[in-house]
Amino acid sequence: MIYFEDNLRVRYYETDKMGIVHHSNYIRFFECARLSFMEKMGFGIEKFEEAGIVLPIVEIKCNYKYPTTVGEKLRVTVEIQELPKARFKLHQNIYNEKGVLCASGYVVSAFMNTKTNRVQSCPEEFYKILEEEFKKG
Amino acid sequence: MIYFEDNLRVRYYETDKMGIVHHSNYIRFFECARLSFMEKMGFGIEKFEEAGIVLPIVEIKCNYKYPTTVGEKLRVTVEIQELPKARFKLHQNIYNEKGVLCASGYVVSAFMNTKTNRVQSCPEEFYKILEEEFKKG
Amino acid sequence: MIYFEDNLRVRYYETDKMGIVHHSNYIRFFECARLSFMEKMGFGIEKFEEAGIVLPIVEIKCNYKYPTTVGEKLRVTVEIQELPKARFKLHQNIYNEKGVLCASGYVVSAFMNTKTNRVQSCPEEFYKILEEEFKKG
Amino acid sequence: MIYFEDNLRVRYYETDKMGIVHHSNYIRFFECARLSFMEKMGFGIEKFEEAGIVLPIVEIKCNYKYPTTVGEKLRVTVEIQELPKARFKLHQNIYNEKGVLCASGYVVSAFMNTKTNRVQSCPEEFYKILEEEFKKG
Repeated sequence: MIYFEDNLRVRYYETDKMGIVHHSNYIRFFECARLSFMEKMGFGIEKFEEAGIVLPIVEIKCNYKYPTTVGEKLRVTVEIQELPKARFKLHQNIYNEKGVLCASGYVVSAFMNTKTNRVQSCPEEFYKILEEEFKKG
Repeated sequence: MIYFEDNLRVRYYETDKMGIVHHSNYIRFFECARLSFMEKMGFGIEKFEEAGIVLPIVEIKCNYKYPTTVGEKLRVTVEIQELPKARFKLHQNIYNEKGVLCASGYVVSAFMNTKTNRVQSCPEEFYKILEEEFKKG
Repeated sequence: MIYFEDNLRVRYYETDKMGIVHHSNYIRFFECARLSFMEKMGFGIEKFEEAGIVLPIVEIKCNYKYPTTVGEKLRVTVEIQELPKARFKLHQNIYNEKGVLCASGYVVSAFMNTKTNRVQSCPEEFYKILEEEFKKG
Repeated sequence: MIYFEDNLRVRYYETDKMGIVHHSNYIRFFECARLSFMEKMGFGIEKFEEAGIVLPIVEIKCNYKYPTTVGEKLRVTVEIQELPKARFKLHQNIYNEKGVLCASGYVVSAFMNTKTNRVQSCPEEFYKILEEEFKKG
């Protein structure tokens, strides 16, 4: 298993009329942590772009458990339970400062070659990095 | 079953660097259609607010099947397969102009009383409207 | 002068904790009307892209006069007072259903050639269309 | 003069089809820095809310000078050149990591009493804090 966490702070415009963060924004918070994770692995979004690969999302699920609002410091986690093949699944949670689980879900992305416009398997270099990390975890 | 559909057009800022609509925006498109649906039922968001009830989202799932981009006219559907009790589940699809299914998912919301800050069951008046609609469908 | 108007409806996620539309969204509403305007002129965003031209924003100003909230139908206007040269200035207003002026501002964009990555003057074909329209107005 | 700066990182969803940050997001970045500034002054958004005051935006201006994209670390500055009366004006700049000025503008907000729904002058306590800070600067 690979585990990573990132931190972010809720912005004013992310709240809605209910006074809490709009549910669509948790999907965005998930993404923020994913990109930080990939960068930490030494294979950030720029490297993917250089390799001519983008990671379109194919599936997303989120359970909303506890509301958050402007100013709160959130901890967004990334957990990889199996190495990616054609699809890359990441389990993600969001906790508030008191450690309360606010949202829990997963995101599945594909690897798409921007030259051929077709999906492909996980780039070998990225796979090896994750494999190495898995051994540590 | 209750079926409803709404139309919207993809805006420029809804696209991202990949040139396509950012996945978080489909979650927002789903919401647009839900609000139109509730208004069509004669029980829009203002009526819920007057009744002191908000509908926080408790679960969301979306499968992304085909990309969309700026200017496209999308058809967003709402399908209710069972009458709401404590939770209100809506199945939602997004189609492009050619009829291609672009996204498919569901959204579950609760009914929360803003005075007590507690969840409650579906307001009776709204339930009856849906029940009536169910008979037609 | 060229005058155009577009309509849109405030979405739930566009509101914030104050219960009203977040100020940044008016900037987005302005853009929606601009794109509709250009399309109406027969020179929409796709035509600009085909011509290898994008329209980055160089200046924006907005005065907020009256709040709006979810469900409101807004009328967003575009007014062109002079033909574009290197820069393209559009005056824009937003009115609510009662005709109250809610926001008023302007947007200036440049024309940037995506091959050279340099700004250029207004594409001739688009200029002629506007010139023709000016005569009518 | 009072000077403050905040840092943030461009998120993926903040980019658009042009590959750069959508212009409306700079308006949001400005807000992030303003809220950090007010918190640093010991009078954050929660304190305003406790005092029954919100700060609706009445005017905004922004000049876009240089594009930014996902992953970039931005420095967002806040500069107060005169103490607020009925209106509170903040000058704001955004710089990229190389120190290039990417956006420059100002934001004017009012102080609105949420009980009376009327604008009022700057709350005395907040004014005194700013006055004190001015002397230092």
